[in-house]
Amino acid sequence: MDYTLLNGINSPADLRRLPRTELPRVADELRAYVLESVSKTGGHLGSNLGTVELTVALHYVFNTPEDRLVWDVGHQTYPHKVLTGRRDRMGSLRQLGGISGFPRRDESEYDTFGTGHSSTSISAAHGMAMAAKLKGEDRKAVAIIGDGSMTAGMAFEALNNAGVAHGGLMGDVLVILNDNDMSISPPVGALNKYLARLMSGSFYTAAREGAKSVLKNTPLYEFARKFEEHTKGMVVPGTIFEEFGFNYVGPIDGHDLESLIPTLENLRDKRGPQFLHIVTKKGAGYKLAEADPVKYHAASGKFDPAVGFVKPATPPKTTFTQVFGDWLCDMAEADSRLVGITPAMREGSGMVEFHKRFPQRYHDVGIAEQHSVTFAAGLACEGIKPVVAIYSTFLQRAYDQMVHDVAIQNLPVLFALDRAGLVGADGATHAGNYDIAYTRCIPNMAVLTPADEDECRQALYTGFLHDGPVTVRYPRGAGAGVVPVKQMTAQAWGKGEVRRKGQRVAILAFGTLLYPALEAAERLDATVANMRFVKPLDAELVAELARTHDALVTVEDGCLMGGAGSAVTEALNAAGITVPVLQLGLPDEFVEHGDPAKLMSLCGLDAAGIEASIVKRFGAKPQVVRSTAAR
Amino acid sequence: MDYTLLNGINSPADLRRLPRTELPRVADELRAYVLESVSKTGGHLGSNLGTVELTVALHYVFNTPEDRLVWDVGHQTYPHKVLTGRRDRMGSLRQLGGISGFPRRDESEYDTFGTGHSSTSISAAHGMAMAAKLKGEDRKAVAIIGDGSMTAGMAFEALNNAGVAHGGLMGDVLVILNDNDMSISPPVGALNKYLARLMSGSFYTAAREGAKSVLKNTPLYEFARKFEEHTKGMVVPGTIFEEFGFNYVGPIDGHDLESLIPTLENLRDKRGPQFLHIVTKKGAGYKLAEADPVKYHAASGKFDPAVGFVKPATPPKTTFTQVFGDWLCDMAEADSRLVGITPAMREGSGMVEFHKRFPQRYHDVGIAEQHSVTFAAGLACEGIKPVVAIYSTFLQRAYDQMVHDVAIQNLPVLFALDRAGLVGADGATHAGNYDIAYTRCIPNMAVLTPADEDECRQALYTGFLHDGPVTVRYPRGAGAGVVPVKQMTAQAWGKGEVRRKGQRVAILAFGTLLYPALEAAERLDATVANMRFVKPLDAELVAELARTHDALVTVEDGCLMGGAGSAVTEALNAAGITVPVLQLGLPDEFVEHGDPAKLMSLCGLDAAGIEASIVKRFGAKPQVVRSTAAR
Repeated sequence: MDYTLLNGINSPADLRRLPRTELPRVADELRAYVLESVSKTGGHLGSNLGTVELTVALHYVFNTPEDRLVWDVGHQTYPHKVLTGRRDRMGSLRQLGGISGFPRRDESEYDTFGTGHSSTSISAAHGMAMAAKLKGEDRKAVAIIGDGSMTAGMAFEALNNAGVAHGGLMGDVLVILNDNDMSISPPVGALNKYLARLMSGSFYTAAREGAKSVLKNTPLYEFARKFEEHTKGMVVPGTIFEEFGFNYVGPIDGHDLESLIPTLENLRDKRGPQFLHIVTKKGAGYKLAEADPVKYHAASGKFDPAVGFVKPATPPKTTFTQVFGDWLCDMAEADSRLVGITPAMREGSGMVEFHKRFPQRYHDVGIAEQHSVTFAAGLACEGIKPVVAIYSTFLQRAYDQMVHDVAIQNLPVLFALDRAGLVGADGATHAGNYDIAYTRCIPNMAVLTPADEDECRQALYTGFLHDGPVTVRYPRGAGAGVVPVKQMTAQAWGKGEVRRKGQRVAILAFGTLLYPALEAAERLDATVANMRFVKPLDAELVAELARTHDALVTVEDGCLMGGAGSAVTEALNAAGITVPVLQLGLPDEFVEHGDPAKLMSLCGLDAAGIEASIVKRFGAKPQVVRSTAAR
Repeated sequence: MDYTLLNGINSPADLRRLPRTELPRVADELRAYVLESVSKTGGHLGSNLGTVELTVALHYVFNTPEDRLVWDVGHQTYPHKVLTGRRDRMGSLRQLGGISGFPRRDESEYDTFGTGHSSTSISAAHGMAMAAKLKGEDRKAVAIIGDGSMTAGMAFEALNNAGVAHGGLMGDVLVILNDNDMSISPPVGALNKYLARLMSGSFYTAAREGAKSVLKNTPLYEFARKFEEHTKGMVVPGTIFEEFGFNYVGPIDGHDLESLIPTLENLRDKRGPQFLHIVTKKGAGYKLAEADPVKYHAASGKFDPAVGFVKPATPPKTTFTQVFGDWLCDMAEADSRLVGITPAMREGSGMVEFHKRFPQRYHDVGIAEQHSVTFAAGLACEGIKPVVAIYSTFLQRAYDQMVHDVAIQNLPVLFALDRAGLVGADGATHAGNYDIAYTRCIPNMAVLTPADEDECRQALYTGFLHDGPVTVRYPRGAGAGVVPVKQMTAQAWGKGEVRRKGQRVAILAFGTLLYPALEAAERLDATVANMRFVKPLDAELVAELARTHDALVTVEDGCLMGGAGSAVTEALNAAGITVPVLQLGLPDEFVEHGDPAKLMSLCGLDAAGIEASIVKRFGAKPQVVRSTAAR
């Protein structure tokens, strides 16, 4: 396809100069461009194909960037990026130095709010709308949120707040529910059923007075008028969104520009909280993606659009996620008390097989991290052994529940923390850098950092056996490639192990950085300990290594501030041991998106970086020093 | 009043042996007992007087503890404690070694789930109900939740999850909405308006089929039957709770045992998710409390029931909360960009005056911590300067929003963290022990720890001026009594100050423990620095003190793990300085409820404790050592 119209659009103002009749062609070109672009870079696909018409309509109707668009989650913003001056940069998507896969305020003035985690958009848009009122500025704030994101509690907190006036002021916020009947995992929960009922037409909100005026000039108007005649005098039930104070309109077809544009125009001119329910199809316009939306949610790399996603000829290395998934099934087989819980990440957390084999013990609670953890606590009170599979970055959503409902009551809940450390292409919003710091300060909480695939399996088993809360953290992707031993063997609780005996310097490694640490140690002739436990920390081993070495080096793939290295220095301080310590870990900054290996190298956490830091601080290895001295 | 019936009830089984006709008298005695008891110990009053009949009815109808009662928030469980064998221990309420002001699993088998923070009950009860299904046990799980707690997102997450089946299983959970039209602050938000509409009778759900069977044998049945005839053929709108999959019944009078008991009996025998909406009055049966529910929410100490709460003759010392409230008004006066935000803690956070004077710039978002922070981020995007006033323990609810929406975008949001450190009578669930650890690991975040009232005012001002996210933490109650200087002066960013020059040992104090540290230092002739900033830490001062002293001691009223002391050792390690460090802070355990001063002493964080720890580690002060040696 040639991009005749698209090539002329370098900002939404260019789009707005086009006659309305050209917009369907713009949408076609945009869809083709996004598909071609993602086929070369990888990235999210289905959700972006689903929002093409909506993006065109929004930038056509609203005066962006003066009017604010807040995209929930934000992985559906590729069409938005193309229309807002970043068409030529799409080839750098999600790569180091390239544009982000999510909206970012520092990337474009059209990205009014950075997103990544779900369900923040209504809160942010409400803030922007109230700011406009306070400053006497006349503009709209629009939140575009998916049906999956609507299940998270904070979306309801925002509706509850945005639906009423504050000090006499009411924000002009428009919430667009982009209902594609799918979050990343298949949809669950009562709300989803409710939305399905709305779509099925057992509600007839289009016939109501408020909605009617909004639908004016749209093809739906005539239908609404006729329906109204038909139902005259009948009580038409409101939607829950109206109960929250919003003027609800919909559902309308989110791929039909003829409906979308006049509806948005009418809503733009209304005051107070508005709610538009649109229905779209993930992967719309790309048959393969329409047919299998879960598979086509995101492309891990390049693909041929004509062929679609194909399995790589050589199977990729086993990931930690798969190690978890296998362990979960084996453990469930062995212990009928096990229940697995995921907040809407069945695929990402490796739970598809578990779901299939143990449907009654599988719980996808929707995007509802807070609930997932307290639900687990309730189960644990009754002798069930819950395993909460959650990404490190998403557990931030359930921090209080972890402290208040699990740890204070010392309940045996096992947190399987996937995506710990840097995650690569998704960038700072998804990085799991903070969990060691924020979990280890919680009393009763144990924190395990397995070093490889086999250790991960055994750590999960060890944590599962423990009668109290445990976190087992492991990174995205594959590790050193140590094939898990099928037989499960409990690790000695709170004990590390010396993996290499060297001299002068002892490296205390937490997690998968054990392997680059061993590599660095080989060149430096340093001792290396695989610490395994951040908490309870092996204080005896720490003291022993301090006594037998001139200096200690701690290595971890979590934030340095408050991390495992600080646990080591706390133990030294508590024991009254004074020894030079070098702490290596993730820096006190938000690390960009890009190739994970490259990023780790930039952070000085590959073998060469670890070696260089040690040499810089403690000098080169003894032999070298001695031989130099002998000259 | 004599407690003839109450004295015979040592467990709910005793209650269940009484004829139903005696229950109103039990309720009367129970109400009198709770009032008398709280008048002697202090504690929550209004909510407990409001749940007397409900508590009697629940224990009468349900087979507790086999059936599980989960009390949301839990400060309304005094009647429950009295009926479940703790009548004689009510005199020790909220005191060290005494019974807790909240339910606790380790206190009684009738306390099936520990609460304290709001909105956890539905999640926990759903977990218990699913566990019963999995184990094939036939019992009920009942969540009792207030209308204020319903505004928090996690309550909706739980409804969304509990309202549908999982793997073919559906839990027998009963949610009782105890609607008293009040959280701690006056109610806000769309949901509250909605509940008011339900109560006003513009909904007639009592007439529906499902509800009718539940209301059988109650006085409402006849009304429902008649109403049904009247409205024959009319579409009766459902409630939002029904949209979530619950069988909704109500609203009914929560003080009328004649309605409560048969309704609960009928609901007990139903399967699947049930929702009962009851209406109660905070402070019911105690005229003074009924008239002023906000004032009578909780008694800070003893009072004469006949007279009610009276202002103490000598006004209490100015609290940090008041210092914040005064600063907020002064700052708002000086800078029109300031907006103040509270998640439902207007009184507790000292914002009553601010609300009165700046109604358009005051936002009570309801119990919705997550939304409060992202809403602030949205405001900050538009040049507004939001101040989020929140307790340290409640900020745990918005941790992800702090990282993801504020810090990554480096937005100027000021977090005023009240109740940092131990809080006393409320105990572990409300302790603000972890915020230093969980905030300082976030990039871009500044963390200020003012040492006294004046410093608090100046730190708030300093934080407000900063163009990025800032946390200012201060404890519950009063400090050293340093009257705030009206004139606001910015503190040097990231700089501490030496407050006492001594020798050998330097104490680095963070926050209000500066004063006991100074006292200890006087006896030890130690140096004392008021560090002021945990982040950015004054690394120069740390290095200087390390160079000029034999040892460093860090002191903080936050958890030791990952806290300010660890920030100091990280700075030393980064600078390659090796010096003995003693870290003093809150221990790695959940500290009980009790008198704050006593608790701090038990934790070794009063002057004597700090002195003793230093002497134990580094020996007595030099002079003493020398004079001993000279003998």
